[in-house]
Amino acid sequence: MRKQLTIGLFGFGCVGTGLYEVLNQSNLLDAKIKRIIVKDRTKKRIIGAEHFGYEASEILNDEEINLVVELINDSNEALAIVREALSKGKHVVSANKKLIAEHLDELLNLAKENNVSFLYEASVAGSIPIIRNLEEYYNNDSLSSVQGIVNGTTNYILTQANYGVSYADALQKAQELGFAEADPTLDVDGFDSKFKLVLLIKHAFGLTVQPENVFNYGIRQIKPQDVKYASEKDYRIKLFARAEKIGNKIVGFVAPHFIKKDHVAYQVDNEFNAVIVEASFSDRQLFLGKGAGSFPTASAVLSDVSALQYDYQYEYKKSNTETKPVYAEDFYLKIYLASKDIQALNEIPFYFLDEKFQSSGYNYQTGWVKFSDLSKFDFNNIEKLFFAVLPESFKDEEEFLKFKAENEVLVNEIA
Amino acid sequence: MRKQLTIGLFGFGCVGTGLYEVLNQSNLLDAKIKRIIVKDRTKKRIIGAEHFGYEASEILNDEEINLVVELINDSNEALAIVREALSKGKHVVSANKKLIAEHLDELLNLAKENNVSFLYEASVAGSIPIIRNLEEYYNNDSLSSVQGIVNGTTNYILTQANYGVSYADALQKAQELGFAEADPTLDVDGFDSKFKLVLLIKHAFGLTVQPENVFNYGIRQIKPQDVKYASEKDYRIKLFARAEKIGNKIVGFVAPHFIKKDHVAYQVDNEFNAVIVEASFSDRQLFLGKGAGSFPTASAVLSDVSALQYDYQYEYKKSNTETKPVYAEDFYLKIYLASKDIQALNEIPFYFLDEKFQSSGYNYQTGWVKFSDLSKFDFNNIEKLFFAVLPESFKDEEEFLKFKAENEVLVNEIA
Repeated sequence: MRKQLTIGLFGFGCVGTGLYEVLNQSNLLDAKIKRIIVKDRTKKRIIGAEHFGYEASEILNDEEINLVVELINDSNEALAIVREALSKGKHVVSANKKLIAEHLDELLNLAKENNVSFLYEASVAGSIPIIRNLEEYYNNDSLSSVQGIVNGTTNYILTQANYGVSYADALQKAQELGFAEADPTLDVDGFDSKFKLVLLIKHAFGLTVQPENVFNYGIRQIKPQDVKYASEKDYRIKLFARAEKIGNKIVGFVAPHFIKKDHVAYQVDNEFNAVIVEASFSDRQLFLGKGAGSFPTASAVLSDVSALQYDYQYEYKKSNTETKPVYAEDFYLKIYLASKDIQALNEIPFYFLDEKFQSSGYNYQTGWVKFSDLSKFDFNNIEKLFFAVLPESFKDEEEFLKFKAENEVLVNEIA
Repeated sequence: MRKQLTIGLFGFGCVGTGLYEVLNQSNLLDAKIKRIIVKDRTKKRIIGAEHFGYEASEILNDEEINLVVELINDSNEALAIVREALSKGKHVVSANKKLIAEHLDELLNLAKENNVSFLYEASVAGSIPIIRNLEEYYNNDSLSSVQGIVNGTTNYILTQANYGVSYADALQKAQELGFAEADPTLDVDGFDSKFKLVLLIKHAFGLTVQPENVFNYGIRQIKPQDVKYASEKDYRIKLFARAEKIGNKIVGFVAPHFIKKDHVAYQVDNEFNAVIVEASFSDRQLFLGKGAGSFPTASAVLSDVSALQYDYQYEYKKSNTETKPVYAEDFYLKIYLASKDIQALNEIPFYFLDEKFQSSGYNYQTGWVKFSDLSKFDFNNIEKLFFAVLPESFKDEEEFLKFKAENEVLVNEIA
């Protein structure tokens, strides 16, 4: 029943090391690492030099190796490795969300053509088995949304920020602790969360979206006044990757959200990740766990290796339905928009204004905007503006017009 | 690829009705309910009388029916149905935790002999896919504990109690809302949680334990002073079903726990359930969702039906390992023990006493006790005593003796 797996491993950082220890030093799985390819020939390692090689071909041309585990940082190099491994009929397990998000359909077609599995649980929310659950457990229940905190670095920084530490200090502390990279752009500007969101959208709704078409806004522009506003209202700021179904349309983006005290994600702090799944029958469910780090990631990789012993593959059942959902940006959401410069607030059209606050040096307004207006801007690089999504359900055009007609215009109406 | 399922349904309460609507009124699954067996011939139902029958044999003798979904309350009747259905080569999906916990090995052997599946995700923690995750996802990672809040009724009552409502009032409110039965014993004395724990132990550790060998203590004896103590210490009282691995031993029981403010279960309130899984690599993970109610339960049943289309069955991989774990009670835990009657506190030997408080009408002490001393007592029926587990890790004999030797005896030492 169980399949004997002979593994070629690319990369021997923390995750690779953890994986090696479990696989080769226990009898938990019928799987052994035969060869490990690394870059650095001089680095001291915990096992002898005879285990290592330096050429990808040593694995890719070894017919005995039937599983490639790819754990390297460089996503271009990883792409070449994954392509060749799948083409040569080897199963692939990867944790590289950027690579997978950018080339998903190509790679899964390649896997299908060669009748092998391509698994990547570790690429989204570390140890949380969210891909597997979306694939297996929620395959019949009509999902309405998948959202959550999927980047531990920004959640660590925001946890500090929510308790009053400045963004710059929190980032520095995260870097010292090894939670943030020297160049933290991919994390703090929401790119990493976006790659993960692309995979969640695929497995939740059966839709392939290109990362470049998905809006991402991170946490670099958060000012102390924004944190103060949140805290006065009993909100915490969290970076949410969020995908929802509105009719037959799928909407999805990454942005800071104000999270209410009674929301399940309010207390998800530090390097923890949380994914919330809403479905018509099962209601709201939360999966919480460590999103990064060597062991949580290794555990997810291990789980994929284990599943391969039983020839597991993702079936992408939701991609095979007759009515294909479409990706859209024409919905309304309620936001908080703040700036030192009061004029700057006018750059985003508000279709329904709720609150407006002015002072010397800090102004904000809250109200309803159209997402397609927001997504035109590169907010990560607009120093003078900050926005966060407020806790209200999204509305489509019809719902919004109805809402607008039913509610008095409280302050001022633009457009 | 997909298997056509023809279903015989026993029971047509809320869950059955929900299931019928999804299965027969949508094309989500290739599964139809052919016949529904109910007891009450006079009850008005949402669909015509032609769908209903009153004899189990109408389903059990129908060769076209290849799946029996059992959703009735009477566990003796359910047992007879499940036995016969499996024997006749029909798959079975059940939500009846009592039945399954009491007859697990018999029923799964019967399923195996007849080469059919016996699935019961809905029986533990409603919509939370915990059985499936223990089966599929944590099958390689060495689990150290599975615990959590698996009974919505008691969690609803405790939520009220934590906010100052008396036990009696909270129970009455729960009954009015339909969260508690007229005779709430199974819930409030921890039996329901225990049946679920037995299933968690099987899927987490591969061990079959008989429910009568597992200690269960519920929430009936909680006094206002106990709630006050908890609240002063920033604890909330939660009824935990808890199983842990200590060496090669498995320990497990149901009892009230004092939960700290920073614990992931602290905020799990009302009818929500939460299961926390700890494993060596993936660290601590929490699964949160609604634990009861027609739709959450129907969603879990639906998920089993859906999995059957692909011939899914539990593999009980952890039951097939060479070294079998054993069930044990010889470990130490830290508890809070309270009574009006100061002498009553002496009935339980404390091996290490931490705090002692005396007043007219309310006394308590905290410290370390041996579990096998506790489990001798039928605490559910001892009005004068209340105990709750304090937030400290369990210790085996060796760890406890080491701890004791290293710590000064603060107040008083017994034995």
